[in-house]
Amino acid sequence: MAGRRRARLQLRHGEGDRSRLTSVQGLVALSLDALSSVAYGPEAIALVLVTAGASAVRLTLPVTLVIAGLLAVLVVSYRQVIAVHPDGGGSYAVAKDDVGPRVGMLAAAALIVDYVLTVAVSLAAGAAALASAFPSLLPYLLETTLVVLLVLTAVNLHGIADSARVLMLPTGLFVVTILIVVVVGLARGHPVAGVGTAVAPHGHEALGVMLILKAFSSGCTALTGVEAIANGVPMFREPRVARAQRTELMLGALLAVMLIGIALLIRRDTVLPREGVTILAQLTAGAIGSGWPYQAASVIVAVALTLAANTSFGGLPVLLSLLARDRRLPHLFALRGERPVHRYGVLAVAAAAAALLVAVDARTQRLLPLFAIGVFTGFTISQTGLVLHWTRLRARGWAGKALVNGTGAVLTAVATAVLLITKFDEGAWVVVIVMPLLILLFARIRHYYDRIGRELRVGEIPAGRPRPPTAGRLVLVPLAEFGATISGVLGVALGLGGETVAVMVSSDEDHTRALRERWDRWDPGVPLEILGSPREAKIRPIVDHVRRAAAHDGRSVVVLVPVIQSDRPRYRFLYDQWSLLLAEALREHVPGALVCMLPVRITV
Amino acid sequence: MAGRRRARLQLRHGEGDRSRLTSVQGLVALSLDALSSVAYGPEAIALVLVTAGASAVRLTLPVTLVIAGLLAVLVVSYRQVIAVHPDGGGSYAVAKDDVGPRVGMLAAAALIVDYVLTVAVSLAAGAAALASAFPSLLPYLLETTLVVLLVLTAVNLHGIADSARVLMLPTGLFVVTILIVVVVGLARGHPVAGVGTAVAPHGHEALGVMLILKAFSSGCTALTGVEAIANGVPMFREPRVARAQRTELMLGALLAVMLIGIALLIRRDTVLPREGVTILAQLTAGAIGSGWPYQAASVIVAVALTLAANTSFGGLPVLLSLLARDRRLPHLFALRGERPVHRYGVLAVAAAAAALLVAVDARTQRLLPLFAIGVFTGFTISQTGLVLHWTRLRARGWAGKALVNGTGAVLTAVATAVLLITKFDEGAWVVVIVMPLLILLFARIRHYYDRIGRELRVGEIPAGRPRPPTAGRLVLVPLAEFGATISGVLGVALGLGGETVAVMVSSDEDHTRALRERWDRWDPGVPLEILGSPREAKIRPIVDHVRRAAAHDGRSVVVLVPVIQSDRPRYRFLYDQWSLLLAEALREHVPGALVCMLPVRITV
Repeated sequence: MAGRRRARLQLRHGEGDRSRLTSVQGLVALSLDALSSVAYGPEAIALVLVTAGASAVRLTLPVTLVIAGLLAVLVVSYRQVIAVHPDGGGSYAVAKDDVGPRVGMLAAAALIVDYVLTVAVSLAAGAAALASAFPSLLPYLLETTLVVLLVLTAVNLHGIADSARVLMLPTGLFVVTILIVVVVGLARGHPVAGVGTAVAPHGHEALGVMLILKAFSSGCTALTGVEAIANGVPMFREPRVARAQRTELMLGALLAVMLIGIALLIRRDTVLPREGVTILAQLTAGAIGSGWPYQAASVIVAVALTLAANTSFGGLPVLLSLLARDRRLPHLFALRGERPVHRYGVLAVAAAAAALLVAVDARTQRLLPLFAIGVFTGFTISQTGLVLHWTRLRARGWAGKALVNGTGAVLTAVATAVLLITKFDEGAWVVVIVMPLLILLFARIRHYYDRIGRELRVGEIPAGRPRPPTAGRLVLVPLAEFGATISGVLGVALGLGGETVAVMVSSDEDHTRALRERWDRWDPGVPLEILGSPREAKIRPIVDHVRRAAAHDGRSVVVLVPVIQSDRPRYRFLYDQWSLLLAEALREHVPGALVCMLPVRITV
Repeated sequence: MAGRRRARLQLRHGEGDRSRLTSVQGLVALSLDALSSVAYGPEAIALVLVTAGASAVRLTLPVTLVIAGLLAVLVVSYRQVIAVHPDGGGSYAVAKDDVGPRVGMLAAAALIVDYVLTVAVSLAAGAAALASAFPSLLPYLLETTLVVLLVLTAVNLHGIADSARVLMLPTGLFVVTILIVVVVGLARGHPVAGVGTAVAPHGHEALGVMLILKAFSSGCTALTGVEAIANGVPMFREPRVARAQRTELMLGALLAVMLIGIALLIRRDTVLPREGVTILAQLTAGAIGSGWPYQAASVIVAVALTLAANTSFGGLPVLLSLLARDRRLPHLFALRGERPVHRYGVLAVAAAAAALLVAVDARTQRLLPLFAIGVFTGFTISQTGLVLHWTRLRARGWAGKALVNGTGAVLTAVATAVLLITKFDEGAWVVVIVMPLLILLFARIRHYYDRIGRELRVGEIPAGRPRPPTAGRLVLVPLAEFGATISGVLGVALGLGGETVAVMVSSDEDHTRALRERWDRWDPGVPLEILGSPREAKIRPIVDHVRRAAAHDGRSVVVLVPVIQSDRPRYRFLYDQWSLLLAEALREHVPGALVCMLPVRITV
């Protein structure tokens, strides 16, 4: 999720300090990804452990404690990232600057995978949370996620106010809900209510090191999102770095409390995964009963997860634009402020997330391995980058700092490797295929841009001064039919100077005669050339004619194409296609010609 | 499938009589749709009857004889269609001319449904035929159909030589194969080999009128395609009508022989539907054993079905262009000769067929009700149109002709109604939803075109003569960066006359200073305006600037946008997007300005 928050930073350039965030505001605004992962992280651990029998689930606590240890390392480490990269930027920027372009591409590929998976995982977990409270949704988990995805896509296509403050209420409610569940649950001594149907666990696996490692790496998905604050440093009020570091610490503490509290409850009550009800829902019912507060809590969790999914829609376009500026993706994506471009990104995220959700039938647990690999690749790269940074600078205390980051890098690298190996046939192979393909794509695009840059000598001042052409000009005006607008179009053509000729296409002789007769009757003072088209083509004959004219004449050829522009975009595909296709064909097949489009506005 | 063959007719305009078809050639070229349906029609009957017990399957013969009777009516009737509409045209043209525009839209909607279903049904039946010979394909029926669909789509996107002659060998082989199966099978007296595993039928349905009607309407899918010859009359050699009529007769006779022969074999041996093996494959094994000739026969059947699927890719674009000319679909589709347009049609057919195949898991029988409804709606409309034609003209013998067509109309209408009712919850409801939606779409589009035509006074000679603008001209040249090409671009701009100003966008002051300094160093004799863009937009500032200039000046504003055009289309999305988006935004937001695009050719 690195890079994600940079969107806001750049959109907010030029705003005053007043609108920037305090530490607590920053926590609320930037931590939803990280905090909402407590809804699926502990469950992922329990699901692995239960394969070694019911009592093995009690090991969720020690595994969670190790994960909390890793969290501590990550928090310390990201406080250093904040100090070293106060402009934000995420693991792509860090990797590119501190390690090198190849690792930068790896980081970018991991991030793209990560953005898509954030959407899919959060929506799947949100649907599971909702179905825990409203079991009638259970048969429609996939449908629920797809409907929510559709709504998110529509909202993002329409464009939303990109405000961190919108997140404050749901984040606050989510944290309070989880803390109530943990505190009340622990205070009660035993669960007050049970939900869902118990499934007898059959322990078919041996409780060995491999299983513990698997549980550890699955549970690490609870750590996704802790890098978001480091990416959002410029959103904080001055003193920016200190505030962001404080927020990172608060996030770490809060996340650790929530995770350990949940693990304590799981251990004390030997909570087992149940069909159709999440572990978090079981704990909630155990703490506050299964009445309406339980249902309200489930809705709060589902909303928080949905909003966590929404962050990807803001974040991926930013990453794509950074990549485009580095010539790793089409320049197109650097134009992310422009509407049609923004749309491509939103639709791409939505389509990929939908495909994933369908492929795994909206089951969170099947997505987690892929998710964790992407995130942990990013963690590893960031930490490694910092180690290189410290060893290069050798400032005071560098060895200690390098040690902390090195430990983080090794731990996250181990988690990545364990995930890749243990989950390879459960879906991790997808990541192994997709990431190298993305990297290959980045490399090929850069290679092409370098070649084109050399050919166009981009950035160089041209050798000579511009010289206008000396020969005359031929202005061709292709017309589709008679109508009120053509008089104005021909007027503009005459204004360009030179010889003006109107061009029409006809497929049979009767039609040709009729056109000629009407033209002569109108007598506009401009000659009409009627091109025959035995096969009813309406573009090709004009292109051929313009090409012949351009080749034959020493004069420069201008083609003036009127384009009907409807005020209503949804009608647009009905009218201007002939003009647009003609203009495109002319650009492609007649390199010398100047293709001018005259918008003709209509109100229907 | 009406309208389908018209593609060839129009592409072949202007070719001599030499390349046109004799009766036999016409049969081979135009009958694959119809003939290949014997691969699934009789099976559809048997599948219905077997629900009333194994012995009920023997009723396949009488049901087939009734269908052959309907076939005879259809053949007589289409011979009359050939005489009345010697220009071809299909049920859309017939309905529009003889009945009215509303029924024409119904016919068009039925045809669109039909084209998509031809692809899906033929591919599904082809995969079933192949899997009968190679059982290892059985678990991958859907995958097989999707791969074949992908190949067909790729071939059609690339564009194929649209020659009827290509079909001759596969059609001939198919007919010979079926005739060998029928003749040898009947001669042998009993099957020589069995394939597939018997499934004990449990007769849970009563053998009543409803079941017989259901079997009849399912079996009518064997008649799909008999209208193709009537649509392809212009492809025949003179005397065109007589040849086409003879061909229609041959098709009817051949199809009837094949259907009745297959039904006889089913009755004699009480052949039951088996899991994983088609009935046609069982009959083939019974006639020629289960060795390599059996496998070869299955491959021939599968190839014939695949080629039958391919006809839709040629036919739908023709129908869409006819609809577009009648302003029932975007004008765009009338440009079907142009490559990008052709692509939309091919991709639309492929996507819809793929969705259908996935939805029914490539099971032919689940598609047949939808297919038959579309086809029989077309039959009914054509017959009704002819009845109206005869009663209007009242030429000699009109009453007899009207009686034949009326009988056809009633029979096919009954079949349509039975299908709709009996198969409603098995998928026919899809047709009931899709066809009205398509008709609504046609109506809305026509309504819009009528309004726009009135506003633009399309077809009218304009009132006044064109007058060139009298005020001066401002030529703005937006440039993205320095480079070798900009000198030439500015030269063209200067050639347009008037005041020329270059425009660049910069997001920060350092960059602005650097641009200014380099421009001054170059000193091209054209002033440079640098627009500030605090939020890094690269299009919006230029559009705003042009709009201000257009509003402020009395002069006409020309914007000259250089467009990089790569020789290689696959690289095109990498470079020209900024220019294209800028041009689009200018057309949309600055109605008065003339937007000129100067293609700059590059070789990488």
